Amino acid sequence: MTEQGFNVAVVGATGAVGQQMLKTLAEQAFPIKSLKLLSSSRSAGKQMEFDGKTLTVEEATPESFDGVQVALFSAGGSVSKKLAPEAVKRGAIVIDNTSAYRLADEVPLVVPEINEADIHNHQGIIANPNCSTIQMAVALEPIKQAYGLKKVVVSTYQAVSGAGLDAVDEMYEQTGQILNDEDISPEVLPVSKDEKHYQIAFNALPQIDVFQDNGYTFEEMKMVNETKKILHDPSLAVSATCVRLPVETGHSESVYVETEKSGATTSDMQAVLQGGAGITLQDDPATQTYPLATAAKGLPDVFVGRVRRDLDAENGYHLWVVSDNLLKGAAYNSVQIAESLVKLGLIRS
Amino acid sequence: MTEQGFNVAVVGATGAVGQQMLKTLAEQAFPIKSLKLLSSSRSAGKQMEFDGKTLTVEEATPESFDGVQVALFSAGGSVSKKLAPEAVKRGAIVIDNTSAYRLADEVPLVVPEINEADIHNHQGIIANPNCSTIQMAVALEPIKQAYGLKKVVVSTYQAVSGAGLDAVDEMYEQTGQILNDEDISPEVLPVSKDEKHYQIAFNALPQIDVFQDNGYTFEEMKMVNETKKILHDPSLAVSATCVRLPVETGHSESVYVETEKSGATTSDMQAVLQGGAGITLQDDPATQTYPLATAAKGLPDVFVGRVRRDLDAENGYHLWVVSDNLLKGAAYNSVQIAESLVKLGLIRS
Repeated sequence: MTEQGFNVAVVGATGAVGQQMLKTLAEQAFPIKSLKLLSSSRSAGKQMEFDGKTLTVEEATPESFDGVQVALFSAGGSVSKKLAPEAVKRGAIVIDNTSAYRLADEVPLVVPEINEADIHNHQGIIANPNCSTIQMAVALEPIKQAYGLKKVVVSTYQAVSGAGLDAVDEMYEQTGQILNDEDISPEVLPVSKDEKHYQIAFNALPQIDVFQDNGYTFEEMKMVNETKKILHDPSLAVSATCVRLPVETGHSESVYVETEKSGATTSDMQAVLQGGAGITLQDDPATQTYPLATAAKGLPDVFVGRVRRDLDAENGYHLWVVSDNLLKGAAYNSVQIAESLVKLGLIRS
Repeated sequence: MTEQGFNVAVVGATGAVGQQMLKTLAEQAFPIKSLKLLSSSRSAGKQMEFDGKTLTVEEATPESFDGVQVALFSAGGSVSKKLAPEAVKRGAIVIDNTSAYRLADEVPLVVPEINEADIHNHQGIIANPNCSTIQMAVALEPIKQAYGLKKVVVSTYQAVSGAGLDAVDEMYEQTGQILNDEDISPEVLPVSKDEKHYQIAFNALPQIDVFQDNGYTFEEMKMVNETKKILHDPSLAVSATCVRLPVETGHSESVYVETEKSGATTSDMQAVLQGGAGITLQDDPATQTYPLATAAKGLPDVFVGRVRRDLDAENGYHLWVVSDNLLKGAAYNSVQIAESLVKLGLIRS
């Protein structure tokens, strides 16, 4: 920590994303003067390490934010709805990793590689997009710049850590039970607050978050609506099918995209993606090189491979997009937003 | 076994599909007079149960087919290429579950619910389509009948048993090693004969079968070419992304389809699918009802759910299609073809 830094709070510090936020703040050497770890009353009192120091987690209350300059929220939508306005009232800028404010007109929804300048319009709250949205948007942005975007159809292969540590525990415990021929009793996945729960081990669950009236899940509609907002393209056609897999960390996505301009070859598209901010191209069929969830874990990049032109549409392309859902999909992108705030001169130490 | 039945041979009897063929022949009470279990020399001598009797597996040679009327092959393409013509020469009708003859002009490629009549044109060999192709084709057929098909984009979630028993063993062994914090050494998946092998446990591998020159895998091109042949529609636009998951049995597929006629509602499409041969509709978001690989295992149906209209395209629809890859995807469809042969009077006892 440094006297030249900022007073930072992390809300939901003990969660899957909160832990990665602390790790990323340290790794990125974000300038911190003081750090408050906040949580629900249930986790208050826990001790956590940061930068060689032991910190005690405190219960998050409105008063917790007195003197805080940047507050990173990742404790669920209801906590953000209740406490983010309190933090803003006390002068903090909130970077919110829940869906509570993402679609609000006055709230910038930011992936710094794509729309960093939107941060200038903030009114106290800046939203971090949904994990599965971020990595797809990062892959789409250079394609948009080069050829324009017309239509996107995505099928996801999402990791359980996106549903929190309880889901990770359930997956590993259930897997062990099945290997030992024991009975299982799913209680968390696909959606902890929904009525029915299904086996995640050795299975694929086509439900992430609750169903909406239109038959799509909330996760699918996040991908649709957030992608349009981040890319500043309300008329872009986007549809999604979101599926949870027995993978701990690392979302994979099969993305079909139709561009405005026709005729780019697979090589053209690979070159465009290779030049895209935040993207690492891993694409060589001859050496079986393609992105894998297990290889992406712990890295901030969005990995893109299996790039190929559709067999019929002159303007159609298929991509395989993988990223660590807790990093670029959550903690890393949030810390990037905090760094952008500093870079743009929107907070001063 | 019955005097009124047929002389049947199963080639590859000890494999993942071969075992299911025996089970399905018994369950469907296919009329069998004599049954030969054939395999490579490696598995010859093994004992297997059928209909309460113990049979000894014999090494498959050209002479093995003397007197055989129906031979079900599922022992790999090279075995079929070598021995299927020998079986035909000796008067057998071959139902081949490998990719060896599927695209040959003179070989019918049959899913009985869709194109049973094609069997009449056989010249000794009838091909059973690829597992991932069959279940998608079954779901597409009623849509084709009602609205016509224009374009299909599929992303698959495929089970390891499609890669054989070695792959199943690898998945379970590797999973146990990871749970025990032991080192792993992948040797089978994604493709046993390919150079590199990757972790399947807690991962998603975007490679099934070897890569082709166009950047698609052979599995993806099977889905493309076989779907066109089964549906008698060479101009149908089909592209696929095939992904292997840590699921033992049961392929899932996220299918995006554009129809010729526009305007069918989601309810219209559900009704059409519910009436489709071989399909069981499982589609009620209100009760979290949708197809799951674990629930499909052991059943012959193609399960369809998550049916919904694309959010933008008036003629676009999304489906989640699940089936047991060893049954409708392989053994069950092969036995159905044998039953069709009897029904159409193409073999006589």
